[in-house]
Amino acid sequence: MTARPVIALLSDFGLRDHYVAAMKAVVLGICPDASLVDITHQIPPQDILAGALELEAIAPYLPGGTVVLAVVDPGVGSGRRAVAIEAGGLHFVGPDNGLFSLALQRLSQATAVSIEDRRFVRERVSRTFEGRDRFAPAAAWLARGAALRELGPMVSDLVALDVPVAATTRDGIDGVVLRVDHFGNLVTNVSDDALPALRSSITVHVAGATIEGVSGTYAEVPPGSLCAIVGSTGRLEISCNNGNAATVLKAARGTSVHVRLRSGA
Amino acid sequence: MTARPVIALLSDFGLRDHYVAAMKAVVLGICPDASLVDITHQIPPQDILAGALELEAIAPYLPGGTVVLAVVDPGVGSGRRAVAIEAGGLHFVGPDNGLFSLALQRLSQATAVSIEDRRFVRERVSRTFEGRDRFAPAAAWLARGAALRELGPMVSDLVALDVPVAATTRDGIDGVVLRVDHFGNLVTNVSDDALPALRSSITVHVAGATIEGVSGTYAEVPPGSLCAIVGSTGRLEISCNNGNAATVLKAARGTSVHVRLRSGA
Amino acid sequence: MTARPVIALLSDFGLRDHYVAAMKAVVLGICPDASLVDITHQIPPQDILAGALELEAIAPYLPGGTVVLAVVDPGVGSGRRAVAIEAGGLHFVGPDNGLFSLALQRLSQATAVSIEDRRFVRERVSRTFEGRDRFAPAAAWLARGAALRELGPMVSDLVALDVPVAATTRDGIDGVVLRVDHFGNLVTNVSDDALPALRSSITVHVAGATIEGVSGTYAEVPPGSLCAIVGSTGRLEISCNNGNAATVLKAARGTSVHVRLRSGA
Repeated sequence: MTARPVIALLSDFGLRDHYVAAMKAVVLGICPDASLVDITHQIPPQDILAGALELEAIAPYLPGGTVVLAVVDPGVGSGRRAVAIEAGGLHFVGPDNGLFSLALQRLSQATAVSIEDRRFVRERVSRTFEGRDRFAPAAAWLARGAALRELGPMVSDLVALDVPVAATTRDGIDGVVLRVDHFGNLVTNVSDDALPALRSSITVHVAGATIEGVSGTYAEVPPGSLCAIVGSTGRLEISCNNGNAATVLKAARGTSVHVRLRSGA
Repeated sequence: MTARPVIALLSDFGLRDHYVAAMKAVVLGICPDASLVDITHQIPPQDILAGALELEAIAPYLPGGTVVLAVVDPGVGSGRRAVAIEAGGLHFVGPDNGLFSLALQRLSQATAVSIEDRRFVRERVSRTFEGRDRFAPAAAWLARGAALRELGPMVSDLVALDVPVAATTRDGIDGVVLRVDHFGNLVTNVSDDALPALRSSITVHVAGATIEGVSGTYAEVPPGSLCAIVGSTGRLEISCNNGNAATVLKAARGTSVHVRLRSGA
Repeated sequence: MTARPVIALLSDFGLRDHYVAAMKAVVLGICPDASLVDITHQIPPQDILAGALELEAIAPYLPGGTVVLAVVDPGVGSGRRAVAIEAGGLHFVGPDNGLFSLALQRLSQATAVSIEDRRFVRERVSRTFEGRDRFAPAAAWLARGAALRELGPMVSDLVALDVPVAATTRDGIDGVVLRVDHFGNLVTNVSDDALPALRSSITVHVAGATIEGVSGTYAEVPPGSLCAIVGSTGRLEISCNNGNAATVLKAARGTSVHVRLRSGA
């Protein structure tokens, strides 16, 4: 007995309308054994970077063989390509607009095709809802065992996303907040690897606040206090123990973060 | 091997409380193989029309054999009937208050029963939560293979919902906005079929704005501009490319929409 | 063929980020046949009591063998224990901070262990996200059939939650609102059993309003009127027929509720 195939969904559709269910209904009509997992459907409308960051974060945890069906698609119905990608034992299906580029950077040997073969899409494709009519069926057929190359011609020039990169300077690291999570944690573009080994020697400056050292857990600082911490996705985060750092600091995506070596350290 | 039965759920319960999970737990206790799909649980409290519109939209995409378990039920515990309906290869279970009437208009040969046989409901039925104690078990038994007529006596006078109909006049079509979706798209009661074949000849008037022609995709108009479009459910919609038409126009359910032939066209 | 194991999830993670999906991905990597049910992920951040109340409410409806994976965990990464509990035919996995104590009060014969055996947790355990790295795998292994005692040493002093108890006095019952649900119903700590048999003889005082008698259904009072009702979890609730009692009364958790026998009754 083979395991049930996992299809993991992400979109900016929200949960108010039937749109996510329409994709799932199409999937189950083709692949009734699929196990459906929602990554999130609350990506801000048309915010490709936000979607890309969630996909980057979840990818390492998905079981081998998972098909990621992701739709944040401001260009729906226009000339942008619809793609299916194989990388690191996973499949990705969605618009070719950079949505997958951060996840793919961490995976090896990506192969991609443009979804064009009509056997793998619905007979009538709405020009405003390709998630339902093109991406969902393609994902379901892959989960059922179709080979990637059956879906359409190979693509070698996937669109890449332009993401701000943290700069290592003589003084330290200059980065920005990339996303704010549900708890108000500020997730930055400063990665664990870039930080100096001696973490107690660091000072983090963000939105007028100064934080000394990197904590191992939230509880190392008093309730209501700010801390810098390496978060669950391997990035430097600014948090507030039992509180909301984004609210306290009035910080958002794009807020500057400066990591400095403490003088004398 | 038969496919796993799909049970698709819709309610106005929201996602904050355990109410949806209570229905799912009861379903899985009876039919452990069920594949559960949420249509939405964010129908505004007691808004039967909003629920009916979502069910109408999703029904064509549900796999054959799906049981729809839907609860928007201001009359819970009162004399209103609990019904199970078979139509178009689908089952529907919920209160008899018009919630299913739009979906049923598009399906053939509806047969309905009043859910009364005690074998198919929980032993104690809460008078404030029949979703858990009557509708969920009835849906699960149908998914498991119970025959509709086992559940109770036939019903031939299902409650119908009173929905505003678009009027075709000498001047054009007079309709209204029926729902506003997550993206701020205004979904009207003007159907694709009612529009003239020559779509470039149309002018749409809504909330003080005038829109020329019907677009094929959002991207045909500049970012931030309004467009009229035939949406994914076959209805005329007013959208804003990369924006929110409801916010821009201060429009909501009930806002008038007038379709006119352009002079000289 | 055995039924598919149910894993029911509760957290304060919200639905915006990939955090819930990360737990599910880990679960499905270990136990691909699991049927995943969300109880709720909208517990207010770090509100252990709110989580405990939802678990208490859902527990009686979960199919036998269900594994409850619940994470409301302000002390993550600190010294608080990670526990797995067996009671009433169910399993519970999460932090030892009282989150399960209300559910356990209603179940018999709880056995608990501290999750320490490294075979049942991920190789690297993030100090900010044990839900993904410790609780999810432990829950999945239990669903797959691991014995509770394999996970770690027995624990006999589970943390109990301090919940306000309704006081029965000479005058009646003095209680408080414990939670406000999505519909604005005020769920109190006054249980069905504590109410006098003759319910028409009761007056309920709450937030300046006086409600005569206990209704059987919302529809027994006119639309917009307040009623007292025994809710679906066996507790006294204050509701507003077709309205929102919390808004009408400006009530919240902690608001006092007084049940009195009517003079002359």
